Amino acid sequence: MLVLGRMANRKKNESGELALIALIRALADKLPRGQVRLGIGDDCAILRVPPGNELLVTTDFSLEGRHFRRKWHSPQSIGHRTLARGLSDIAAMGGKPLAAFLSLALPRTVARNSKWLDGFLYGLRALASEAKVPLAGGDTSEAPGSEVLADIVLLGSAPTGRALTRSGARPGDAIYCTGALGGAAAELAELAKNSARFRRATTKKYHPHLFPQPRLGVGAALLRRRLATACIDVSDGLSTDLNHLCEASGVAAELDAALLPVHPLTASLAPAAQLAAILHGGEDYELLFTARADTKVPRSLAGVPITRIGRIVPYSKPRPRMTIVAEGTRFELQPHGWEHLR
Amino acid sequence: MLVLGRMANRKKNESGELALIALIRALADKLPRGQVRLGIGDDCAILRVPPGNELLVTTDFSLEGRHFRRKWHSPQSIGHRTLARGLSDIAAMGGKPLAAFLSLALPRTVARNSKWLDGFLYGLRALASEAKVPLAGGDTSEAPGSEVLADIVLLGSAPTGRALTRSGARPGDAIYCTGALGGAAAELAELAKNSARFRRATTKKYHPHLFPQPRLGVGAALLRRRLATACIDVSDGLSTDLNHLCEASGVAAELDAALLPVHPLTASLAPAAQLAAILHGGEDYELLFTARADTKVPRSLAGVPITRIGRIVPYSKPRPRMTIVAEGTRFELQPHGWEHLR
Repeated sequence: MLVLGRMANRKKNESGELALIALIRALADKLPRGQVRLGIGDDCAILRVPPGNELLVTTDFSLEGRHFRRKWHSPQSIGHRTLARGLSDIAAMGGKPLAAFLSLALPRTVARNSKWLDGFLYGLRALASEAKVPLAGGDTSEAPGSEVLADIVLLGSAPTGRALTRSGARPGDAIYCTGALGGAAAELAELAKNSARFRRATTKKYHPHLFPQPRLGVGAALLRRRLATACIDVSDGLSTDLNHLCEASGVAAELDAALLPVHPLTASLAPAAQLAAILHGGEDYELLFTARADTKVPRSLAGVPITRIGRIVPYSKPRPRMTIVAEGTRFELQPHGWEHLR
Repeated sequence: MLVLGRMANRKKNESGELALIALIRALADKLPRGQVRLGIGDDCAILRVPPGNELLVTTDFSLEGRHFRRKWHSPQSIGHRTLARGLSDIAAMGGKPLAAFLSLALPRTVARNSKWLDGFLYGLRALASEAKVPLAGGDTSEAPGSEVLADIVLLGSAPTGRALTRSGARPGDAIYCTGALGGAAAELAELAKNSARFRRATTKKYHPHLFPQPRLGVGAALLRRRLATACIDVSDGLSTDLNHLCEASGVAAELDAALLPVHPLTASLAPAAQLAAILHGGEDYELLFTARADTKVPRSLAGVPITRIGRIVPYSKPRPRMTIVAEGTRFELQPHGWEHLR
């Protein structure tokens, strides 16, 4: 890395790229330093992992045309979502974010559009400030094609041996999720129909797709209070992520459709689309976790509502991995992968 | 992250992407686990940083058309170079690599070309095995355009407070570099003229551009034996990287042209091009370091020749940051940025 530093002396396309580096450095300077002993400006960043803690690491692409569209998403939303994806993975492990690293490649036209870039960095910085996560480095480049390319790395920490994983669920455990489901898919459907309406969306409230809220406070509380046996974030949709959790734990799950917390935005959808948004809609970035039946799980954690939605049962092979009871009838629930934007 | 896991359930483009994930997992399984407590398969990887150590972090893009060309570079070379960039940053800090994370986005045509992908992963794996660095995670996606997009994250460790940085050089220090300079630029020039000749290049010896050797052993020895006051890797070219080191340390440098270790491949270049390759050619991935004048620096470290090439002097403003003496005449040396492939 330190192409952030490296590029300071590159001749080609100097104005645009120098401006990008200066902007990213300025952003980093406005954020807390936390455990970062050496940030942007050397071959590597140097960090301290707090004693008694392990390191959590996650990396997430945010590629134009696959994860966002500049025609649909405001630059603030793209910056926010780029960071939110990584923070949500840290939240799912019950971790505390230590530092973010941003790799960003811009097509020349975008590098010279300071308004777009300001918006992107503003969105990223607002969420980083809120999560108190330093920006400790990254890489920059001119993009080879016409798409904006970002890759975010998040480092976090958790007390040794205590990070929440997907593999700890046991038969008899209850299944919970945070917040409400389907909102991101419902908002994405609206966005596809009328993106102009969302052009000025810069506030995080009521925008589950454009400004998802990583559940860091909930994850930290689950870990600290030893409430959860397993945890995952709902990034690909409830059905897909519950399936991941069940596979990793070697168990099966039964959901109760009547218990699912439904995001109010899904009310605008037709009934079949509403159900699809709730069960399969991706990018809600809520947490899905399990707890022993005798664990008292509060109705809210860190200000976020917690809802029991089903239970873990033994898995044996011809039986389905996931079932859902709706209006007295039991259905097999299959994972419906999150699909990239079309 | 864990889109490596996530994608297992995506429906779209399933065959190609599933194959990619399976291949990356297989690669990870063949590498040592080291300090990785939980690798591919959860929301985050979990690592232990050895007690008494700090964490080093570096991220580097490898973007087709900017950092490599599929028409010029064999897939083995691209895989090797992707990892080498990160390892060289760890080497420059005197660190020991802990884990690599690979984010890889492939255009559909490439995802289905198992021969290309096998070659890429083979090149990456061979270097990872040699450096004993586990692959602990990453992300995968279909690329939005027609270019292969990679981003490598390297984590490393160094005893607390002892990582080599760019900022420790002081007037009176001697300047050293490892190996020989200009070889990568010379080979790149050959590659541009006749890439077919290099199509089968899969061996690392004698290919300074296609298979650069990160100097991990040298970096570790410099740190362990407390030989260096400052260090940087020569990724952007001697003039640019020496300038970075001088700026970070607040000093100036005087080089002696007659002392520069010249790579034999540069003999094929015209005299002016040869000098440019040695002074400004990027991607040699040698280490450039400084040591106190009274420090006995061996002639080789970890089997790599070490050459004294100049000295650090005080910096005061109208004087140039860098000078070079060639045939009795002193010239001002200016940083000549590494330029991306055209």
